Amino acid sequence: MAKDKKGKSHKEERKEYTFNKLKGLGQEIIEDIEQNKVPSVRVPSRGTGNIVYDEAKRYYVLGDRYGKRSLGNVKQIRKMGQMVYVANFCKDLVAREKTATIREMYYVSEGWGISFKNQQESNIVGEDLEVTLGTTREDLGLMPEEDGASVYGDITLTDEVEINASKMGKSGYTISPTIDQVELGECNVDKVLAVETMGMFHRLVQENAHKRFNCLIVGLKGQAARATRRFLKRLNEEKGLPVYICNDGDPWGFHIAQVIISGSAKLAHVNHDLATPDAKFIGVTASDIINYDLPTDKLKDVDVLRLKELSKDPRYKSDFWQTEIKKMLKIGKKAEQQSFSKYGLEYVVDEYFPAKFEEMENQA
Amino acid sequence: MAKDKKGKSHKEERKEYTFNKLKGLGQEIIEDIEQNKVPSVRVPSRGTGNIVYDEAKRYYVLGDRYGKRSLGNVKQIRKMGQMVYVANFCKDLVAREKTATIREMYYVSEGWGISFKNQQESNIVGEDLEVTLGTTREDLGLMPEEDGASVYGDITLTDEVEINASKMGKSGYTISPTIDQVELGECNVDKVLAVETMGMFHRLVQENAHKRFNCLIVGLKGQAARATRRFLKRLNEEKGLPVYICNDGDPWGFHIAQVIISGSAKLAHVNHDLATPDAKFIGVTASDIINYDLPTDKLKDVDVLRLKELSKDPRYKSDFWQTEIKKMLKIGKKAEQQSFSKYGLEYVVDEYFPAKFEEMENQA
Repeated sequence: MAKDKKGKSHKEERKEYTFNKLKGLGQEIIEDIEQNKVPSVRVPSRGTGNIVYDEAKRYYVLGDRYGKRSLGNVKQIRKMGQMVYVANFCKDLVAREKTATIREMYYVSEGWGISFKNQQESNIVGEDLEVTLGTTREDLGLMPEEDGASVYGDITLTDEVEINASKMGKSGYTISPTIDQVELGECNVDKVLAVETMGMFHRLVQENAHKRFNCLIVGLKGQAARATRRFLKRLNEEKGLPVYICNDGDPWGFHIAQVIISGSAKLAHVNHDLATPDAKFIGVTASDIINYDLPTDKLKDVDVLRLKELSKDPRYKSDFWQTEIKKMLKIGKKAEQQSFSKYGLEYVVDEYFPAKFEEMENQA
Repeated sequence: MAKDKKGKSHKEERKEYTFNKLKGLGQEIIEDIEQNKVPSVRVPSRGTGNIVYDEAKRYYVLGDRYGKRSLGNVKQIRKMGQMVYVANFCKDLVAREKTATIREMYYVSEGWGISFKNQQESNIVGEDLEVTLGTTREDLGLMPEEDGASVYGDITLTDEVEINASKMGKSGYTISPTIDQVELGECNVDKVLAVETMGMFHRLVQENAHKRFNCLIVGLKGQAARATRRFLKRLNEEKGLPVYICNDGDPWGFHIAQVIISGSAKLAHVNHDLATPDAKFIGVTASDIINYDLPTDKLKDVDVLRLKELSKDPRYKSDFWQTEIKKMLKIGKKAEQQSFSKYGLEYVVDEYFPAKFEEMENQA
């Protein structure tokens, strides 16, 4: 198990950090009371006006605006009470190394002295806590319902037991929603290839792409779950692996890649844990559609609209993206990643990916 | 690896069966030609008029109506040509132990002498072949895009490598879409507990339900994929394990269970491979909602409509279902499986499931 300088594993370190943050929140309130001050908590604003694209970091972050929750304001008493209850619930989860879904927390809250109108209200308080403490929801023990992606290839992981993602059957290792409790061990690959569909994932596994390209294969299952984004970031930063993403050649495929690369605006407060600015989108591009003469579908109105939106988004301002978006609008066509099968099932592994990787190496 | 009397594994047996079926189809056509007969193929009808609920088998089957595809009919020449091409493609897949998604097959068909108007047309020919040969699509090498469920617990599986589903990390083993290529090995449990949501799956794993109830835990992820249904059936038949299903207490949860138990009408031609008539729905029932005083939501119009539909469905004709459907309509309420958290996160494992299993054992 990887240990840092102080001899702590990744999991232990995050647990201690989060536990102290939660404890600190309570201590501040107690200190306020002991000093006869009205207890209050500063909650950074998540409003659109406070979401800023950070050019240096290359992802969205929160600005420095914040709101104040004070027991001196009658309207805020309930909200602050809820926050303390949620924080206490999370502290208990972290201490016991348990997790709960946000749905479970909502039901558990029925037994508390303070209630929520609906689950949306309890979700928001969970997010308040996340942003106030600067931790992720997963660190707080609040688990998303969604599964992470599938990973296949030669990496050893410690997820309760030591496992190797090339020895777990054809569907590989399923990224746990609590991926920060997993230690990344020995890793005998030199890159990561993430693909949008499980169809392509299974194609790559069948064609031994993990061996031929010495890579991990990640099946994103559409829009990448938070756990998947966190996992890719950790592979990139802890293991120094370049991350390549291949999705359908349409605005939705582009954006699945972009959210992995630059994070989402909605999660600006946790992008520092989720975004992988050095990850690269390698296709399917509009140029690929032309160069490989791929089977296509016509862009729908909604595709055209979305492409125009993307072209104005700061995350797409590079020459690469501007050129590809314009080209796609010009040809008026999109293509799926499985469309390479026009040339046979093996073509994508025999021809397309080798050409792409060579292109990437020449750029580097 | 389990071998049958002839020393063949489950996987080898199915491969040989399918290969011979595909070869046989071609041989029939060749024989027709050699005998100067017009080649034709009998394709069992999948129309609603030919879908029958079989009381003895306890699932939907196809009746004995069929259509004829003949090269003597100008309108059918293209369709029959497509079928031969698809059969040849599948024969090649089976021989090479490869799979392709139906999406890939559609793209591959661009290179054939005979084309498809759209993917729907190629999908239908795939189904024609399935029903004509009496095999599943997966046996033919045509893989669904969707993932199977997650399994956690003490069973050894051979999916290329030998693995144990209790030693694969917290998310367990992901059921491969080609589950019939997997051998079920040693299994140290006495039942299977399948649950609708991954939230409940992770709750059960965290609370050590697999040890406490000596069971496999299966996370269905909503409507069960074909691979999941096939896996549950194999556990039930090959391993003799009783299968218990716990879903949300609403018509959709009921039906997720029922499709596992009695199959779907749409897949009448493969229900003999997918349905597990002895599987039992154990909750959340309308009675549970009352007995456990669960947090509920009001039934929506669409829920009421669906419950009334189910009450007329032959699969729901037992006293148990009729009573529970009536009771739910009467109380006008539904409840999620996670709503037991009202009594604390552990309640469902400490109280609810033990009570249910005792009830089941008393019935048996």
